[in-house]
Amino acid sequence: MRVTFCCTGTKAEPWLEGLRAALPDAEIGVWVPGAPQADYAVVWAPPQQFMDEQPALKALFNIGAGVDGLMKLRLPRHAQVVRLDDAGMSVQMAEYVTQAVIRHFRELDGYEADMRQGQWKFRKPQVRANFPVGVMGLGVLGERVAKALSVFEFPVRGWSRSPKQLDGVQTFHGAAGFSEFLQGTRILVNLLPLTPDTENLINRQTLQQLQPGAYVINVARGAHLVDEDLIALIQEGHVAGAMLDVFRQEPLPAEHPFWNVPQITMTPHTSARTLRDESIAQIVGKVAAMARGENVQGMVDPQRGY
Amino acid sequence: MRVTFCCTGTKAEPWLEGLRAALPDAEIGVWVPGAPQADYAVVWAPPQQFMDEQPALKALFNIGAGVDGLMKLRLPRHAQVVRLDDAGMSVQMAEYVTQAVIRHFRELDGYEADMRQGQWKFRKPQVRANFPVGVMGLGVLGERVAKALSVFEFPVRGWSRSPKQLDGVQTFHGAAGFSEFLQGTRILVNLLPLTPDTENLINRQTLQQLQPGAYVINVARGAHLVDEDLIALIQEGHVAGAMLDVFRQEPLPAEHPFWNVPQITMTPHTSARTLRDESIAQIVGKVAAMARGENVQGMVDPQRGY
Repeated sequence: MRVTFCCTGTKAEPWLEGLRAALPDAEIGVWVPGAPQADYAVVWAPPQQFMDEQPALKALFNIGAGVDGLMKLRLPRHAQVVRLDDAGMSVQMAEYVTQAVIRHFRELDGYEADMRQGQWKFRKPQVRANFPVGVMGLGVLGERVAKALSVFEFPVRGWSRSPKQLDGVQTFHGAAGFSEFLQGTRILVNLLPLTPDTENLINRQTLQQLQPGAYVINVARGAHLVDEDLIALIQEGHVAGAMLDVFRQEPLPAEHPFWNVPQITMTPHTSARTLRDESIAQIVGKVAAMARGENVQGMVDPQRGY
Repeated sequence: MRVTFCCTGTKAEPWLEGLRAALPDAEIGVWVPGAPQADYAVVWAPPQQFMDEQPALKALFNIGAGVDGLMKLRLPRHAQVVRLDDAGMSVQMAEYVTQAVIRHFRELDGYEADMRQGQWKFRKPQVRANFPVGVMGLGVLGERVAKALSVFEFPVRGWSRSPKQLDGVQTFHGAAGFSEFLQGTRILVNLLPLTPDTENLINRQTLQQLQPGAYVINVARGAHLVDEDLIALIQEGHVAGAMLDVFRQEPLPAEHPFWNVPQITMTPHTSARTLRDESIAQIVGKVAAMARGENVQGMVDPQRGY
């Protein structure tokens, strides 16, 4: 068995060491143009040339959570794209979103800023029932985030393409359920896959339907959000602010207007990082199952795009 | 039945309205010197004169979580001091501590500060196993906090005066277990009651035993912490920082050195605020039970001090 590694912007050596230790009988190497044909590939943002030169690939393991970049390429004819189940990402996503929701609801940034200026000031506590959180996308990550928020007694709502049932979460689905979902949501959390259907989904029309004083947490993809609509709704006062981890162009260009909106808190695409050891263990497990002819979790449906 | 209200710094009218609605047959009023003898009192930081003038009180309901202030007064001879079970405080405490732990572990303040300066920079993700969180005090609040932290897969340890068992939490107790608890802890969360035994408990000797790069979250009482020892350990580099909600003197005096330590994040005693409606419902339930001669949850042991 030959496994090739083609991950843009990722240090290869620790991955190769880990994969070699776990698959001692396999040949494992970094892809370069002209490299021998491999059976399996571990990829992140590979070039089209990689796909064109590896027609015999049986499976591509994507080490990030979103496969939207991969879906834009022409893939080897028989290659199954496989997403990792979790690889330590869902707990990170739950952490990031939960702290963002709590800080906003509890006005902690305001309290801390007051204290940094030497001011000891109280604010009237806000009422939790007035801060329903709506999670868009109820896959592995969305489900974990919704459960974590329930621990803190927030009213939690969820929206997904197809119907889903989640304990303690009021769920909505499809285009028909979208408006009702938005109208009952004050804090909007985006964890959708990026597909032609979801691109630009967070726009003026969407944001306007949220409850007044809305807050937006985007941890999926920058292209879900129409940047200028978010800024406009903040300036108009309907949206109180946002915490953004993902952007249309990353790193965020120096001239982007987000830099100058104080109500927008930003992090550099760090909400859920791929954890190497967990990822390697999952890839190895899936390779073994596929070699036995079994189906594995995370097989991407090219029609659906995730 | 007569109920008197004596809460310093608290707007009385909404409490009186709520209590009157829930106890329509009782006489309910704000205490003033010379007021008639009451059976039950709702108190926060009452003066000694109140106690001296109300010898017939059967019970004092304390509307904050800590009764340390009350325990310093001479109480009416037959008065039972009763703490509220929770009154919406434990979820607030879980929120505050969880966000503090996540922000520190995930270096979110650093990421956000970079972004505010226009810098898109990665940091190597930290390993969760290296951030064991130790919760001191395993009452209603401590238990809730420990459970919330477990949701995010942190190794959680707990320390209390007497032995306690908590699912998923490694527990220690008493003076004998204190060093072992500290030595395995990196993030120290203080939720102890303030008693002569616990005053000044977080001092140089304690902080030194924590793992290097320790972080301190104090949400109990300012007098648990020896302020200058925390500052010294931060300056020496053993302690990375702290998030403090409580102080020896509140509001924190303008000349206090904490204001000038950038590694200390502060909030103005807002980690868990008393929620009026929940508190009134609990007080009314406890009054009814005591009137029937029953014991109620939250009866304070004057010997133990909580």
